[in-house]
Amino acid sequence: MNRRPPIQFCSACGHPVELRIPPGDNRERHVCTHCGTIHYQNPRNVLGTVPVWGDQVLLCKRAIEPRLGYWTLPAGFMEIGETTSQAAARETLEEAGAIVDVGALFSLLNVPHVNQVHIFYLAQMREPQFAAGEESLEVALFSEDEIPWDDIAFPTVAKTLRYFFEDRRAGAFGVHLETSTPDAAVPGAPVPSLPVHTAHTEDILTPMLRV
Amino acid sequence: MNRRPPIQFCSACGHPVELRIPPGDNRERHVCTHCGTIHYQNPRNVLGTVPVWGDQVLLCKRAIEPRLGYWTLPAGFMEIGETTSQAAARETLEEAGAIVDVGALFSLLNVPHVNQVHIFYLAQMREPQFAAGEESLEVALFSEDEIPWDDIAFPTVAKTLRYFFEDRRAGAFGVHLETSTPDAAVPGAPVPSLPVHTAHTEDILTPMLRV
Repeated sequence: MNRRPPIQFCSACGHPVELRIPPGDNRERHVCTHCGTIHYQNPRNVLGTVPVWGDQVLLCKRAIEPRLGYWTLPAGFMEIGETTSQAAARETLEEAGAIVDVGALFSLLNVPHVNQVHIFYLAQMREPQFAAGEESLEVALFSEDEIPWDDIAFPTVAKTLRYFFEDRRAGAFGVHLETSTPDAAVPGAPVPSLPVHTAHTEDILTPMLRV
Repeated sequence: MNRRPPIQFCSACGHPVELRIPPGDNRERHVCTHCGTIHYQNPRNVLGTVPVWGDQVLLCKRAIEPRLGYWTLPAGFMEIGETTSQAAARETLEEAGAIVDVGALFSLLNVPHVNQVHIFYLAQMREPQFAAGEESLEVALFSEDEIPWDDIAFPTVAKTLRYFFEDRRAGAFGVHLETSTPDAAVPGAPVPSLPVHTAHTEDILTPMLRV
């Protein structure tokens, strides 16, 4: 799912770039040796939905690599000019041929080793109608006991599905945040240097309780 | 806050690009006339925190354009290799000199006219220590009645602050999703074509209630 080409030349003027730390910055960037343009690289958002019909969820069998032949929730790269909800609805239509009403934000899963953030929304299918798009071999509705857990394409999709069924059983949907790590270390992958500690919401509510 | 240079040349081989719709795609991309590399453009995430100390929130006065001299929550572009929480903590340290424990996801605000998603986390300051970074003129703690509402740099920051104080008064923090639109139409800005309808969580919980 990574389609980022290497930066060797300046996309503004066509001259070679070099890696250096620009003034006022603290990390190496691709900087044009001719016009000085700094070419930043940033993580990308993959947006998708959990499309619901009755007690079933709509999954797509991937027609493209990576993970060709494995099952996924409809999802793909957010495009310029879109909101996150619009991207999620568009991907659901493109990959699964389903028109959905997009509901609550459901999961935000960091995948730093491939520089992606996967975001899924709950979505209600308008009708039990769907069709395989260009990137899908097959699209089908599954109830919880039919989910092909061993053939799910990506860990973020498996996690989102597990949270969905747990929350539905509990009668309340939450917002689920998590970081996915690779099963094996990826050679050359950047290693985040800043550990993040977790604050509890009560620490932040305390001032209110003191008023 | 937009630093995306125009794409005129291929960053992989240096030859000119042209705008065309690649096979199997449905929108125009910058495609290299020589090596065929497709150069996708995607929205970027701006990550920040609401840094809390007692009943106060930490704000930074911007030392750079856009909105130089206006107040903001510490926030900036997510970098390669980071998670959203790590980016939020790093920006808080860089811009405000404050070490925070990052808590719950608090707001996700789409800003499609500049191709950005602004994401803020609640954060607890470790100590009442802070210092202006390279991109800040001044950093200060504000209680609710001291917030300089007329001098806030960006609508997404004002909205996040208003949600914060409302939620704190209510005694429960939510996750707030919204789309910001420009006050005036931006010439040449892409217009999202797919309307998004909203599903209610009850529609999705219904199957559980029927079981």
